[in-house]
Amino acid sequence: MDDFSNAIQYARTHKQDNLDSLVELLKIPSVSTDPEHQLDMLTAAQWIAWQLTTLGFQKVEVFPTAKHPVVFGELLVSPKVPTVLIYGHYDVQPAEPLELWQSPPFEPTQRGENLYSRGASDMKGQVIATLGAVKAITASGKPPVNLKYIVEGEEEIGSPSLAAFLQEHKDLLSCSFALNPDAGMIAADYPTIVYALRGLAYFELKVFGPQHDLHSGLFGGVVHNPAIVLSDLIAGMHDLKGRITLPGFYDKVLPISDEERQALSQLPMDDEYYKKMMGVPVLWGEEGYSASERVGARPTLDINGLYSGFTGTGSKTVIPAWAMAKISMRLVPNQDPDEVHAQLRQYLTEHAPNTVHWDLLAFASGEACVTDINHPAVRALSQALQSVWNKQPVYKRDGGSIPVVVDMRKILGVESVLTGFGLPDDNLHAPNEKLHLPTWYLGIEALIHFFYNVAKSEDFKGGV
Amino acid sequence: MDDFSNAIQYARTHKQDNLDSLVELLKIPSVSTDPEHQLDMLTAAQWIAWQLTTLGFQKVEVFPTAKHPVVFGELLVSPKVPTVLIYGHYDVQPAEPLELWQSPPFEPTQRGENLYSRGASDMKGQVIATLGAVKAITASGKPPVNLKYIVEGEEEIGSPSLAAFLQEHKDLLSCSFALNPDAGMIAADYPTIVYALRGLAYFELKVFGPQHDLHSGLFGGVVHNPAIVLSDLIAGMHDLKGRITLPGFYDKVLPISDEERQALSQLPMDDEYYKKMMGVPVLWGEEGYSASERVGARPTLDINGLYSGFTGTGSKTVIPAWAMAKISMRLVPNQDPDEVHAQLRQYLTEHAPNTVHWDLLAFASGEACVTDINHPAVRALSQALQSVWNKQPVYKRDGGSIPVVVDMRKILGVESVLTGFGLPDDNLHAPNEKLHLPTWYLGIEALIHFFYNVAKSEDFKGGV
Repeated sequence: MDDFSNAIQYARTHKQDNLDSLVELLKIPSVSTDPEHQLDMLTAAQWIAWQLTTLGFQKVEVFPTAKHPVVFGELLVSPKVPTVLIYGHYDVQPAEPLELWQSPPFEPTQRGENLYSRGASDMKGQVIATLGAVKAITASGKPPVNLKYIVEGEEEIGSPSLAAFLQEHKDLLSCSFALNPDAGMIAADYPTIVYALRGLAYFELKVFGPQHDLHSGLFGGVVHNPAIVLSDLIAGMHDLKGRITLPGFYDKVLPISDEERQALSQLPMDDEYYKKMMGVPVLWGEEGYSASERVGARPTLDINGLYSGFTGTGSKTVIPAWAMAKISMRLVPNQDPDEVHAQLRQYLTEHAPNTVHWDLLAFASGEACVTDINHPAVRALSQALQSVWNKQPVYKRDGGSIPVVVDMRKILGVESVLTGFGLPDDNLHAPNEKLHLPTWYLGIEALIHFFYNVAKSEDFKGGV
Repeated sequence: MDDFSNAIQYARTHKQDNLDSLVELLKIPSVSTDPEHQLDMLTAAQWIAWQLTTLGFQKVEVFPTAKHPVVFGELLVSPKVPTVLIYGHYDVQPAEPLELWQSPPFEPTQRGENLYSRGASDMKGQVIATLGAVKAITASGKPPVNLKYIVEGEEEIGSPSLAAFLQEHKDLLSCSFALNPDAGMIAADYPTIVYALRGLAYFELKVFGPQHDLHSGLFGGVVHNPAIVLSDLIAGMHDLKGRITLPGFYDKVLPISDEERQALSQLPMDDEYYKKMMGVPVLWGEEGYSASERVGARPTLDINGLYSGFTGTGSKTVIPAWAMAKISMRLVPNQDPDEVHAQLRQYLTEHAPNTVHWDLLAFASGEACVTDINHPAVRALSQALQSVWNKQPVYKRDGGSIPVVVDMRKILGVESVLTGFGLPDDNLHAPNEKLHLPTWYLGIEALIHFFYNVAKSEDFKGGV
């Protein structure tokens, strides 16, 4: 048997090893947004560095950043073969609300064909899938391509340190293209390549009313309640057609081409699909666009959190001193997150009454991006998925945001190939996140195919 | 010296004793809305019962109710003198947010002329003021009136058990009138009699969207965000003139008479007063009414709390599964809390979109009420306040709600005289609640005057 066939064979006989590795990593509660998990972040980074070392990577390093470390590793076999830079992140979203988990988020639990744990799908499972593929390849001979890894710990907080890191280590990270398995499939029988991502802008708005909480009997009627003012401001951010009212918000939005509308309409994701996924009786969104268009190709504004006054059991007759909302927008080409920030600020300046004052905090943001579906790495991936699933992959716009894709293009000058083996019902960012194991095992095989396909492609000049 | 003069003298020389008693009671964290304080509630009730026993009350009993016990005590001296039923409550509001207190809420701390603690003003201080007056009177001779006490533990949660208790113990509670010191003064140099109270209706509204929290990238654009729906619903509850839009909300509201408008305009509580009290640059409220009118004689709707999704530090890109608001209305004569409940429900039925479902929970409520300012007990109180402060008391409508006043009129057939020695800047229901001690000491003297004035009045037939 040749190296490739041996590698596929190896992956099929070492499923349990890969699963064991994944469980080990999932047990580390690496929640990047929570300062209490600072040490867990370092543990997760070092765990990945150790995996790379044991896989024979020649250069493995955990680089400190302003916040959470970045893991780098490289395994160079020849200056004549292409170099694939594999991107991943080892951080996860907070697990709250904990009471809604059927099993504890950081105690991975298998039920049926799924493994339940925070990060199982987003994206520790995807990182381990690449490591499993690399392990199968290195165990079977000399790798067909040069491999580099960059695994960050700040994706779930908007990758604030990554651009600077890419800039500083531009040479170290030089490559033919990047593989980013942080996207997902549209269903277990639909291998998927994502060619577009939405951008993100995230804010915290606080509205301040009276100097301190007040008795609603003694002062109700003379003070503008900040929770009501906040509600007014939020209510005004959409019009009756579901369009966002921030001044100039749609000015730069790239319209969807007829060709793309046609392609999006072919996706097996209609209204019924979304209703079932979300458990709602009726969909909602911008008038004049289909569900797939609204999720993939149109910008949105959501409230991610609300807080004010008394939220405990029972009643407390208080007029709260302040009210807070977490507000975020998903952006499409060619919206600029900084401009959206300015638009929100202008909206608030124009609409907030003089009875209150307000404060707007901006979190990390990122632009939207689109990849050329004729890129040779995309073709190599397409063939790999077809070999394993025996069907053409679907090309999809994804509603999520992966700022690193934009940064890699800008700073390293390389395209990213976006895939992943998570499913839409994996409960990303929600309680009971899970990974569908049969799909994941197929994904590991597809990655092995992919690396060999890349090596065979004549479109890469190779070089480290 | 006569008994009366001795009693006044006793109060002046026993200030520290009264303060010590108050501090003891304030140390018991009797938060009625919080199940964790169940035992503290019983401790506070028993503490008050013990005070009555040591004061020589002949019959002292702690009655269990469905929730928190009621303390009863009686000291009968003669069937020929009037009987005063003194009302109080030993429960307090929650102390949260704790970090805003300058000293711990249940460790009473004196700074300058003020004593800081949750319940210092509302209303443990007022209960101890009556006990201090009664102690001075009993120490100086035979009391001039019969005395009964009813001290409940559920006022801050809307007195849900009280009506049934009054009904069941109607005979035991028979009296000439009730003294309710749960109102307050408008300033330290303005002794105040409250002749009207607003009613209350309190609700918790939950809006449910998707079955679980969703990733805002993968689903933003196809689901109606419940936090946005809740904001829309809240925003629609007031029109641009600050009027409440619930259907029929103002239909039964008793208009303010010209005479009363005139009287309210004489109160030393103008816009500047309220701005200073609340620390806001601009007031807000229903068009066409002055600040005093809006607080005392017009109904209001406030949001007391908001909660949805992610409220921690940092960012989490989630579309929340649900959103919650605590909503309450202050009512005026002749609004009916049950009708207001129906109006809110109708508003929600008419305005909530079919993309969500909602649930409305009603907490305890109470009607507004007005007392006749020519009632002999009011005159006795007026003279008492005048004797101590050397000026005419002001008659004031109060914006707060004391359901027991309505219940006592309906069930016991008696009027309540409303006063109290707290000040508007006492931070009721808010952090750093306090009591102004010099005013409180004067209040104790005023109560001694009051009991003797009642005994002298020929308008009471007496009887137990």
